[in-house]
Amino acid sequence: MASVESISNVSMSYPMTSGDGPHSYYKNSNFQKRALEAAKQKEAIEDKLEVNNLEFLGKSETFCVADFGCSVGPNTFIAMQNIVEAVQLKYEQQCHQQKNGSSLEFQVFFNDHVNNDFNTLFTNLPVPPGFFAAGVPGGFTNRLFPKACLHSAHSSYALHWLSKVPEGLADVNSPAYNKDSIHCTGFSEEVAKAYAAQFKKDMENFLNARGQELVGGGLMALRIAATPEGFVSSQTYLGLNNDLLLDCLMEMVKELKQGIITQVKVEAFNLPLYFPPIKELEAILHNNAYVERLDCLARHQNIWPVDPSLPSLLRAFTAEVFKQHFGEEIVDSLFEHFAKKLAVNYETYAAKEEPLNTFIILKRKMNI
Amino acid sequence: MASVESISNVSMSYPMTSGDGPHSYYKNSNFQKRALEAAKQKEAIEDKLEVNNLEFLGKSETFCVADFGCSVGPNTFIAMQNIVEAVQLKYEQQCHQQKNGSSLEFQVFFNDHVNNDFNTLFTNLPVPPGFFAAGVPGGFTNRLFPKACLHSAHSSYALHWLSKVPEGLADVNSPAYNKDSIHCTGFSEEVAKAYAAQFKKDMENFLNARGQELVGGGLMALRIAATPEGFVSSQTYLGLNNDLLLDCLMEMVKELKQGIITQVKVEAFNLPLYFPPIKELEAILHNNAYVERLDCLARHQNIWPVDPSLPSLLRAFTAEVFKQHFGEEIVDSLFEHFAKKLAVNYETYAAKEEPLNTFIILKRKMNI
Repeated sequence: MASVESISNVSMSYPMTSGDGPHSYYKNSNFQKRALEAAKQKEAIEDKLEVNNLEFLGKSETFCVADFGCSVGPNTFIAMQNIVEAVQLKYEQQCHQQKNGSSLEFQVFFNDHVNNDFNTLFTNLPVPPGFFAAGVPGGFTNRLFPKACLHSAHSSYALHWLSKVPEGLADVNSPAYNKDSIHCTGFSEEVAKAYAAQFKKDMENFLNARGQELVGGGLMALRIAATPEGFVSSQTYLGLNNDLLLDCLMEMVKELKQGIITQVKVEAFNLPLYFPPIKELEAILHNNAYVERLDCLARHQNIWPVDPSLPSLLRAFTAEVFKQHFGEEIVDSLFEHFAKKLAVNYETYAAKEEPLNTFIILKRKMNI
Repeated sequence: MASVESISNVSMSYPMTSGDGPHSYYKNSNFQKRALEAAKQKEAIEDKLEVNNLEFLGKSETFCVADFGCSVGPNTFIAMQNIVEAVQLKYEQQCHQQKNGSSLEFQVFFNDHVNNDFNTLFTNLPVPPGFFAAGVPGGFTNRLFPKACLHSAHSSYALHWLSKVPEGLADVNSPAYNKDSIHCTGFSEEVAKAYAAQFKKDMENFLNARGQELVGGGLMALRIAATPEGFVSSQTYLGLNNDLLLDCLMEMVKELKQGIITQVKVEAFNLPLYFPPIKELEAILHNNAYVERLDCLARHQNIWPVDPSLPSLLRAFTAEVFKQHFGEEIVDSLFEHFAKKLAVNYETYAAKEEPLNTFIILKRKMNI
């Protein structure tokens, strides 16, 4: 155990707002819940398990599943419950000679960054019989489990978060200098390249790590919001959110003349958040050594409701990033500005394109 | 997944003081650290692994170990590191044909009650290569893992904490009514019986749960402070701590005449903490269906330094119990009283008996 380093230094991370107060992720994650339910994950997993025939379980009587980027619930519980129920059903149908009355047990791992609020996660954790839960701290672009110990992996709306802000975005001397935006609008080729490169690297690290952790034949389900073919991010609902957040920051710069928030700081700020063009995402999935793409369901759907709840939702998701760059004192004001901005922009939203919600099913290749 | 209940309702729990501030367990657990080092756990485990010959590992390339009642570190990290190093050494000696360059990996689980401060635990967690950590919330008298998934289990100075205050202690109509003390002094037979019964039940539940979770041949190491033969708890250093805490509470009752703290409340208070007579402990270890007692090292040793650091240590360990019964506002005052009380009682301590520190090694029986 020579080179011991603290897990908290491994990569940048922006946890969802902790606790269960009014601005918390726990209270503001309904949109995700609806998206989860809407896509009928359970049926899709059941369907693919049929193809798979549970042969990958071997003689094990424990099924191990992990959620990567779980945050503090409740969506992660619903997602895990869907997987557990799908597996349980198949197990009973396919191998239900429950010798000696024994049945399949589940080890369910909940992963997120070390500064995620695991205390809140654990406090709200449901514990059905035969279901054993554990929390796993750490960035998911790294290995987090021993080899071949997971039977299934899951990640829902977490892979958009890059492990760091892409190179060059805040560097005045870089061709990717992103002075006039805080995200990947899609209008600057160099900025788009920098975001795409970081996303590709993170996705590959994620898939390679999971590829080693999953048993041969194990299924992986991923949800990622993508930018549809023929559009760039700023032409979609999700891109518009970020463009309006920039407008709010600039208004605040003007208001607070000596202020905590300066134009220089705004120019240096970039969201480590990326909604990949669907083709980019597909290419990454097709070229991995460990996993085989079984399915990629994609539907045009605006998962963020454009109504007065939007500022709270966005805040729960992104407050930490703003806090780390500008300081905690700007957060209330930023989302108050955003609420006003939203009120006069409903028609702007209506004219935008819906993002593509993907539900991707991958299978760990056998015997590699 | 029919009967879902929140893990937080399963049993009473009294976490060590959270965070890493001056009164925290994290900053006040040196005495344990020294005790851990003193008993040279690593050597003992290595020795017993020799007997065992790692045959229980089977073909697995992952060694799974859990610490039960881990609190927030750093002792749990040291204990787990000792086990990992001992296993690694034996593995290299005994089965070191590392086929394809692969080596043993470790899944290390840290368990404590759901209201333990897992955020602090995770923040300070070391992550050496090949070592994968997870936190497992829940009371350890229940099952916490699937069947036969652990290769080793550990628990250090945690089994003294009972899952609840024994029956009858606060009931004026019970023969075990413990009006004049806050712990098991050993002078009342009925009170001692009530404590002994609860400890036996908790220990049996613990051993039976671990018995199911460990693979056949897996080792379990437990540290428990016991009361030596021929003495009762109040004749030892550990019992004296509790007797002096009662004196402090009664002084506070007199000071705060209308007070937050009343005599009735003190009479109704009992510590769910028990240092079993060594014979009681041995009997429980000898009569379990799942595990076989390999060794029980016991040494007379006062693990709590009787010096000005004692009030902080005691506070880190017991503050939560006092808080839950009397309210947070009494805690500062209680331990200030204790510091004064200690200053005039060094000779009382010197006249007391040292507790027996036991280091118990158990083996999960094969093929049951």
